[in-house]
Order: sequence, then structure tokens, then C-alpha cells
Amino acid sequence: MTNLNSIGEFGLIDRIQQASPAIIHPETVRSIGDDAAVFDWGDDYGLLATDMLVEGVHFDLMYVPLKHLGYKAIAVNVSDIAAMNGLPVQLTVSLALSSRFTVEAVDELYAGIRAACEDYKVDLVGGDTTSSRSGLVISIAVLGKVPKDLITYRNTAQPNDVICVTGDLGAAYLGLQLLEREKQVFLADPNMQPSLTEERSYLMQRQLRPEARTDIVHELRDLGIRPTAMIDVSDGLASELLHICRQSGTGAVIFDENIPIDDQTHLAADEFKISPITAALNGGEDYELLFTVRPQEFDKLSTNARITAIGYLTADPNQLVLATKAGQQTPIRAQGWESFQK
Amino acid sequence: MTNLNSIGEFGLIDRIQQASPAIIHPETVRSIGDDAAVFDWGDDYGLLATDMLVEGVHFDLMYVPLKHLGYKAIAVNVSDIAAMNGLPVQLTVSLALSSRFTVEAVDELYAGIRAACEDYKVDLVGGDTTSSRSGLVISIAVLGKVPKDLITYRNTAQPNDVICVTGDLGAAYLGLQLLEREKQVFLADPNMQPSLTEERSYLMQRQLRPEARTDIVHELRDLGIRPTAMIDVSDGLASELLHICRQSGTGAVIFDENIPIDDQTHLAADEFKISPITAALNGGEDYELLFTVRPQEFDKLSTNARITAIGYLTADPNQLVLATKAGQQTPIRAQGWESFQK
Repeated sequence: MTNLNSIGEFGLIDRIQQASPAIIHPETVRSIGDDAAVFDWGDDYGLLATDMLVEGVHFDLMYVPLKHLGYKAIAVNVSDIAAMNGLPVQLTVSLALSSRFTVEAVDELYAGIRAACEDYKVDLVGGDTTSSRSGLVISIAVLGKVPKDLITYRNTAQPNDVICVTGDLGAAYLGLQLLEREKQVFLADPNMQPSLTEERSYLMQRQLRPEARTDIVHELRDLGIRPTAMIDVSDGLASELLHICRQSGTGAVIFDENIPIDDQTHLAADEFKISPITAALNGGEDYELLFTVRPQEFDKLSTNARITAIGYLTADPNQLVLATKAGQQTPIRAQGWESFQK
Repeated sequence: MTNLNSIGEFGLIDRIQQASPAIIHPETVRSIGDDAAVFDWGDDYGLLATDMLVEGVHFDLMYVPLKHLGYKAIAVNVSDIAAMNGLPVQLTVSLALSSRFTVEAVDELYAGIRAACEDYKVDLVGGDTTSSRSGLVISIAVLGKVPKDLITYRNTAQPNDVICVTGDLGAAYLGLQLLEREKQVFLADPNMQPSLTEERSYLMQRQLRPEARTDIVHELRDLGIRPTAMIDVSDGLASELLHICRQSGTGAVIFDENIPIDDQTHLAADEFKISPITAALNGGEDYELLFTVRPQEFDKLSTNARITAIGYLTADPNQLVLATKAGQQTPIRAQGWESFQK
């Protein structure tokens, strides 16, 4: 018998891919291996993505408000559609609920779901609600569309492409550290008032209520730019860059001083004695977009404050390095994904 | 604060429906309230259904083989597509797994998933695999298609339509009773050999490895019959008939002696001192199709051994009765759905 942890995320996905039956419908263009499956629907490509959030693994109801959780569940799924350069159209929400949930709690969760559906212009079309012996489980499936000439995969990047990232990285991870610390303080003394101040609000918001970057999808279309590859940053920059490089057969050099990190992230990283670069590389849950563009296209983006060039792709698939200003290079490794719980 | 059990299944679904944002995409034809959501994809309607199976609620791994569970998870989702008179095309599988699962266990589960995908001719196109603090959760989303002139809803039945059901009912429920009894015997004395004999195999198979009736969808098409309404029997005949009547604004009379019940179901019902009619009405998990046809269409079906006429619809929405040969009528009530677990 083989422990699940021993084969890791990539091992399990490879195994599932091998165990999958052959694709029989010609309209199925891509299946497992990208942010969403891709279907040929005539004028457009159809997209289908799914993500499951499990209590005690992805969220802790001691500090996650249900309304934010509902919003986040939608945003992280929409983010997968954005990562294909697409926009969401419909989604379903399945919930497993234990009896400790009240009707009012379900209403709160749906208030967040509704707000996110409105923000991302997606129709809530169905789902399933069942009971659970233990915690809350939220499973979302989202359908999207993308014009055929704009579809963006992970495996089509080329050497010399400029590596770009939207927004800033590492904040969601430090938001989580702050919330976890508050929880420990509260558990030690339930009379303590939370010390989370206004100045930390950005980090908290990034953890509790992330946004999917559909705004960037619109912006790239307006600028007439189709990225050569794209992925969303759910597991940390290192892991996502590794996916693009592994699937495209390229290497990458990124510059540590170029990685966009918010001032609040720097401050909190100091306090927790965490390198902000490590938080950006391995923290995860930022839900920004990581994409590559041809060097000649990058000029159109260079003045955009929401997009930062952080490096370039190389022809050597064994080269995946972080370079400092001083010229020092260190290999990047993906820390990988949460292990299976005991 | 309001307990979830106090509002019940219908109450919760109504509440979720009211909390849903307005539909904004013209291609969304139907959302919550049928077996699947319906989209206008040009030549065909697209269908999207989702169902979640939760350990300890929907299955007990003490007696459910993982391979059968994988098969069943697919079949119950495909059944929702069949209930719209459609056929499945693609699906995604999301799993939450605890560390007690081995790689070999995941392989077993996928062997069943693969077998079902092959049987129902559906492409497995993606999913999500995550860890779980407690039990196994399987969430499936399935896409299907149906020619526009064949789509079959729940709310379009008319008075005088003939009520038909495929296969037989109640067997899955008695299969569950047998398996639960064996479990108790085993827990009392782990050295006891199981007494489940060959002659009980049909009941066990109905519980552990049900089939979706896509064969009936093909057959109806071959006969040129479009049902006036259709639903799959997941929660028991009473509950499904109530859905059709409530949504179509009709009543119904069904004849107890016409309800198709297998001999094995009769024998086991005797043994457990359960009325086989009650098992058919409220047992659930048979995954047969319940549908209505215009009286003049029924002739084309009357010689089909896999389809049984069990009654007819009436114009009085308050009339929902079970009639005996002797002419006695008793009201049918849906026992409803599992309550939320403590």
C-alpha cells in the first residue's frame, strides 16, 4: 500500500490522467492539465473548471466570515476561467452542510455567492445541497467562454517571452498568518480583543475575499494582446511558473527585486520573520494572473501599473532561477501543495 | 436562529432560489429547479448537472467497494442528464480525500469512474483533488446535450398523461437494508462470514452499482416519443411524482398493483417487514426514469418490458393518490429527504 503523500500532487495528477478513459467526443479539445477543460462550441471555445473548498483544509470558520467565504468560493473558480483568457457565464454551487449550520448561516454564505456572481457577471444555474457528518464542503463548477483566437494555454510559452504578473503577491499568505495568530491569542484568552488594525486590512482582505482578475482579461483584449501562456496564482508563483515551464519546455529567470510586493506585506513579513519573496513564491492564494507575452508585445503593457514584468523565459528547461540585483542566481523549487491530512 | 431541519428540502431550495442573483446571460434557458440547467447552444440545448456524494451520508465504506462507488458517482450524475432526455458529453470529478486513503484506493475509485465513463460515452475532462480532515467527498459536474425539440422538463406534464416508470423500484432500498444488517452482524462478531447469497445479488447491485437509463433516452428517440415531463427516481417515486405534479400544476393517480417491483424486492421486504410499495415510494436511489406521455403516444410503449404505466395525471393539483385494486385511495406524501445530520 502506498501513502498518498509519497507520490505528491504531480504524481497523483499524472496517475489520474493515465487512469482516465480515452477522449471520445471530437468537441473535447483539452481535458486534464490546464486551468479549465476546453470544448469546441463553434464560434467560441467553451471552458469548464471546478474547485472544492473543504473546512479545516481551505478555511477555518473561527475567523472566516461566511459571506466572504461564499464570495471567495466563486472568485477562485472564476479565476480558473480568467487563466484561460476567458470570461465566466454560468456556475453551479454544491454544499455539504452539517446540522450546526442555521438557515441564517446559509443565507450569509449565499449573500457572498450572490455578490460574486453579480461582480463577475455569471449566472448561478443550479447545484446540490446535502448534509455532512462533519464540516462544510463547497464545490463549484463554472462554465466560461473565450473566442477561439484568444484561448491561452499553459504549454504555449516560448523562450524570450516576458513573464508578467498582475497585482502583487504574498499578501494573502501574510493575511493568513495574521488571522492564525489572532486565533491563537483568542484561544489562549477569549477575553482578548482582536489587535487587527485598519492598517492590516489589505492583507486580511487578500486572504478572506480575493478577487478574480477578469479585469485583466478585458484589458488584454482592449490592448489587442494575447498572452503566449497564462495560469492563475493559486499555489504560489514558484509552482505556477513551474507549470508553465514544464508544460512549455522552457526555462525561466525571474528577478527578485521585480516581484511586486505590497508595503503591508513587507511590514508583516518583517514581523513574522518571513522573507517576503518566499511568501510570494510559495504562499499561494493570491489569485493573480501569471502570463507570458512576446517581447515585442510587452511595450503595450509596460506603462500599466497593474501588470509587472518579473523576468523572461529561456530555452533551457533545466534553468529555473531567481536572480538578485547583485547577479546571484538561486534555483526555484515549488514547495508543492498541502499534504493529505492525517 | 433557525434550524436547517425546520425548513426542509423544499424550503431550503426555495430560499436558495430567492437568494440567487438575476439571470443575465440570454443563453441561460433554465437554472435551478430541474434535473439540470439548460443553455441555448445554437443547434442543441446544453445541460449541466452536479451531485455530491458524502461519506457517512451517502455511502459507508465498510461495505461499499470503492470501484462501485466510483461507478455510482458517475451514474447518478448521468441520470440527471437522462432525466432531461439528454445524453452526457463531458464531466469533471472533484475529490476530497483523507490521508487514510492509499494510492491503490484512489486507483480503485478511478477504475470505477473510468468504467462508467466508458459505459455512458462521456469524456472525463478535469476536476480537483484536495485533502479532507474527515471523510471522502466526491463532487461531479456533468455536461450533456439534447436536440432542442426533445428537451423534457418537469413542469410540462398535462392532465390525462400516462405516468410511466422504467425498470423496477424499491430494490436499492432493500439492498441497503441487507448491507446494513450484515454490517451490524459483522460489528457484533467480526468472525462471522457474510450470509449474503447469490440470490440477493440483484438487490445489492441496485444499491452499490446503479445504472443511469441512457438506454431509455435512445429508445424513446428511436420510437419518436418525446415525454411531456421527466425526472429521475433518486429520492423515491413519491417525491419525484410530487415534483412533476407541483411544477406542472396537475394531480396524479397511481395504482399500487402496477408499480414494478422485482421478486427479490418482495422477498426481502417480507423479511424486513417493510411494505414493498413503501420501499418503492420512499426508498430512493433506484435511478430509474419517471416520465409522462400523451395517452395516444402510450401505445408505442405498451409492449416494452422495460417501461411500465403506473397511473395517469389529473387536472386537480390537490389530488395525489395511490389507488388499490379494491378502489381504495390513499394520499401520497413525499417522506422527503434525509435530514441534516447532527
